[in-house]
Amino acid sequence: MLIVQKYGGTSVANLERIRNVAERVINYKKQGHDLVVVVSAMAGETDRLINLAKQITPEPSPRELDMLLATGEQVTSSLLAILLKSVGYDAIALLGFQVPILTTDLFTKARIKEIKTERLRKELALGRIVVVAGFQGVTEDGDITTLGRGGSDTTAVALASALKADLCEIYTDVDGVYTADPRIVPRARKLRKISYEEMLELASSGAKVLEMRSVELAMIYKVPLVVRSSFNYSEGTLITEEDEEMEKVLVSGVTYNRNEARISIYGVPDRPGVAAKIFGPIGEAGIIVDMIIQTARPDGKADLTFTVPRPDFKQALEIVKRVGEELGIERLEGDDRIAKVSIVGAGMRTHSGVATKMFETLAKHGINIMMISTSEIKISCVIEEKYTELAVRALHEAFNLEGEVKEEK
Amino acid sequence: MLIVQKYGGTSVANLERIRNVAERVINYKKQGHDLVVVVSAMAGETDRLINLAKQITPEPSPRELDMLLATGEQVTSSLLAILLKSVGYDAIALLGFQVPILTTDLFTKARIKEIKTERLRKELALGRIVVVAGFQGVTEDGDITTLGRGGSDTTAVALASALKADLCEIYTDVDGVYTADPRIVPRARKLRKISYEEMLELASSGAKVLEMRSVELAMIYKVPLVVRSSFNYSEGTLITEEDEEMEKVLVSGVTYNRNEARISIYGVPDRPGVAAKIFGPIGEAGIIVDMIIQTARPDGKADLTFTVPRPDFKQALEIVKRVGEELGIERLEGDDRIAKVSIVGAGMRTHSGVATKMFETLAKHGINIMMISTSEIKISCVIEEKYTELAVRALHEAFNLEGEVKEEK
Repeated sequence: MLIVQKYGGTSVANLERIRNVAERVINYKKQGHDLVVVVSAMAGETDRLINLAKQITPEPSPRELDMLLATGEQVTSSLLAILLKSVGYDAIALLGFQVPILTTDLFTKARIKEIKTERLRKELALGRIVVVAGFQGVTEDGDITTLGRGGSDTTAVALASALKADLCEIYTDVDGVYTADPRIVPRARKLRKISYEEMLELASSGAKVLEMRSVELAMIYKVPLVVRSSFNYSEGTLITEEDEEMEKVLVSGVTYNRNEARISIYGVPDRPGVAAKIFGPIGEAGIIVDMIIQTARPDGKADLTFTVPRPDFKQALEIVKRVGEELGIERLEGDDRIAKVSIVGAGMRTHSGVATKMFETLAKHGINIMMISTSEIKISCVIEEKYTELAVRALHEAFNLEGEVKEEK
Repeated sequence: MLIVQKYGGTSVANLERIRNVAERVINYKKQGHDLVVVVSAMAGETDRLINLAKQITPEPSPRELDMLLATGEQVTSSLLAILLKSVGYDAIALLGFQVPILTTDLFTKARIKEIKTERLRKELALGRIVVVAGFQGVTEDGDITTLGRGGSDTTAVALASALKADLCEIYTDVDGVYTADPRIVPRARKLRKISYEEMLELASSGAKVLEMRSVELAMIYKVPLVVRSSFNYSEGTLITEEDEEMEKVLVSGVTYNRNEARISIYGVPDRPGVAAKIFGPIGEAGIIVDMIIQTARPDGKADLTFTVPRPDFKQALEIVKRVGEELGIERLEGDDRIAKVSIVGAGMRTHSGVATKMFETLAKHGINIMMISTSEIKISCVIEEKYTELAVRALHEAFNLEGEVKEEK
């Protein structure tokens, strides 16, 4: 098999952990697999470098910032290749510009345009373990770029896709994807298998195990993805195309997100173009609106409620206040002590009654629902922040997600 | 003027010092000069990275070691460019592969083959300050290389030569080239001007201010070189072609080297091929012999004395012992408590009596001379180590080198 493995920052945090990674890589190599290994910077290194640049100026020149940040992965990939070679395994470290991984020139959040695979295939044909510096690429002009948050995951998935790899393993510091955050629900169960769509909904609604972008990429190019821990040998979670088995599961997981804030506008004139007047300036300020609910009132006006990321709350409120005065609204309300709890499951497509069960469960525990939004395989409710843990535990129990961790099936 | 400036590790040791560098660079830019600025890694960073690799294995794979070490200069060049741009000066950081600086593939001590100047000229024409990461280059295959000890000086001189720059300034933590080590001779005088040849002899006989390789390169390509401090604004030392003024100076400086050891072989059969039998195996062991003196004796045998670097002393002694037994020598002697003191001056070419004065001066102070070697513009004497300071001070005085530091002439 051709396997792409990606090791995150905590997995390569120091030489001892890099040794563990090498051991694992060698194990796979011994089994006869071809290996491309993507590494992140040592935990904390990227932040250290960003901090250096920010000490100089709050807005470092993006091109040079990328050149600076790219050193983090350059160090780890060199060290891992040095280690593999020192114990007799032929390896070669390749940087973004050497693969090459061609990207757009949108520095600090570049997109991969193309990965040339000739060099990779040549090195693999020579029997070498190819170690690739994650997170970085190069423009057509030879400038170094970085791929933004979760960039090394993206590198791994993109490489797996370009090489048509059999598997892409994402090694991190958690065992896999769980039915709920184990810190809140101690009996949360690790999922053996989950669909791309479910993983996307979990990620978008608060699960932090994978960045959405790499899951999207894996889904588009049908790259089988495994999330697992580099600290033990337990099987992780396979993220793949939806199958019959998955459809039978009503709910796969419960997530929460405490990073949002709610803004409600009462008595908005209900005429065309009003929404654009409100959301236009918010979008221009770079603020991403998550949920939006509009209710028409009998008096011809409307009430509008939406959520924004909590760090943008104040700014969004000011914008709405200004626009609201122009529009002549009745009242404005803001609340940053909210949380969003969501249930996700491919089975919702074919089963009814899931939403009802969710609302009943929350009601039974005296939790008021402020907002509801749904997708084909997800239902999210905004509640008071203080009820977060209670809601997650109650929903986890109501949908029978608890259980022993089942490693093998 | 087009000026290439190089700032060493202590000059960019932290953000505060990088700020000083930026200030100096901006000063020059304001005067209308075109600037290419070469930077080293922050002081200590290269050693830290080497240490990381050596913790993995005593002999890290050279290709990946170079990839690792190159990050040091990548960080500094990014930071300096970020800083310059943040205060409104257009700048661009370029790595070895981006210039490109093409080198041989002899990793960890690559030689520069060619510097393509199109990109550099384009950026200069745009009015940009070009910041180049020192010490690194790239092979035709796109592998990152480093240039060995003093590599950033080499980068600067090679860039100055390729661009036909008017001046190459090497910024370091000393004011310039002195008539003697100021730690030993407090009244040592800074030299205003010195020839390439003299600088080479000074460097080869112990002065540490510049690596020989960059001086050689400057001499070959006639690059006017200035050594000066980045910690003050005093004029440094200009290293340039020999002129009449220099010829008038009998002796320019006194140097010493305590890093050698002496091996003497008595009663060597004086027949062809003997020297090769002795120095062959020493050379094969990678040991570089400095001075060699052979004396023929009336009995048809010879005595042979030579010096080796002190760290290689033991190994050299063992080799000679083994070979000596085969040759049937009389006696073997080794001594690692020696020092070499040298006087250097272009004036020696045209003046006589310099050697005599040196020997007399040492004799007057009761210092025994063990070995003597001379070049056109240098005389070196090996003496007992304990006399080093005394010898340097006595010679400095005898040749009237003392004086006030004269900044302006």
